[in-house]
Amino acid sequence: MADVALLGFKPQLVVPGMKAEAAVQFYKAAFGAEEIGRVTHPKRKAEQECPLILSAELKIGSSLILVSDCFDAAGEENAAAAGGGGIAFRLEAEDVDAAVKKAVAAGAEVMSEVLEEEGSLLGKVKDPFGVVWAIAAVGKKSPEPEA
Amino acid sequence: MADVALLGFKPQLVVPGMKAEAAVQFYKAAFGAEEIGRVTHPKRKAEQECPLILSAELKIGSSLILVSDCFDAAGEENAAAAGGGGIAFRLEAEDVDAAVKKAVAAGAEVMSEVLEEEGSLLGKVKDPFGVVWAIAAVGKKSPEPEA
Repeated sequence: MADVALLGFKPQLVVPGMKAEAAVQFYKAAFGAEEIGRVTHPKRKAEQECPLILSAELKIGSSLILVSDCFDAAGEENAAAAGGGGIAFRLEAEDVDAAVKKAVAAGAEVMSEVLEEEGSLLGKVKDPFGVVWAIAAVGKKSPEPEA
Repeated sequence: MADVALLGFKPQLVVPGMKAEAAVQFYKAAFGAEEIGRVTHPKRKAEQECPLILSAELKIGSSLILVSDCFDAAGEENAAAAGGGGIAFRLEAEDVDAAVKKAVAAGAEVMSEVLEEEGSLLGKVKDPFGVVWAIAAVGKKSPEPEA
């Protein structure tokens, strides 16, 4: 199969029980983490006191980790929809479809088809060792036409 | 508490069932991973056909991940001793004792005391969100005396 350009990955900790904020505070206290970015759910941000964290990016030493609340597509807390929480890897690819196809050809299982999510293409696969890879486009806002 | 210098972390995938080698091959096929280093168990290496992988370091895009077999201190396969497999983070610290103490003060739980392992100081904590951090010294071969 042709080479697929992958840029790298970041571990993503999906925290059940609306505790992503608590996790961020813990990593600051425990490991001196520096918060370098945060995206909250836009609906929850406007209406709720405690916004859902789509993704808080923390730097620990020279390494990056993403911390997220568990939620479903409607922005409601939903651990089941988010796979029950835990650690996944967010892998950045130039061509998400090709990256997913190559992973599946090697033995990974599709968890969610490639769709536009949070303004970027995203597909999820689970590998034969139980690890979830969220394969996301970098700097692409919409799908390219099939060749 | 005083600042503790942390250099960064790498995710470590601990694979049950002696399948670390299969995982390495999968990541090469699925994500074009490049193997940049491997440490095998010295005893197994000499006596067995299939060496236990203490740690294979893979580069996927610009990111690093460690892949390991599950084993106990004697080099026998032992998923229970290794915490049942899964993803942990190997965090490099200048002062392992201080890093463990700071994490515990913030709410982490000690899983294994700081000991010399594989020629380097290593302590393990589990954080309040279920994540295991193996805190390892960088380039230090023995404990420093307590101040």
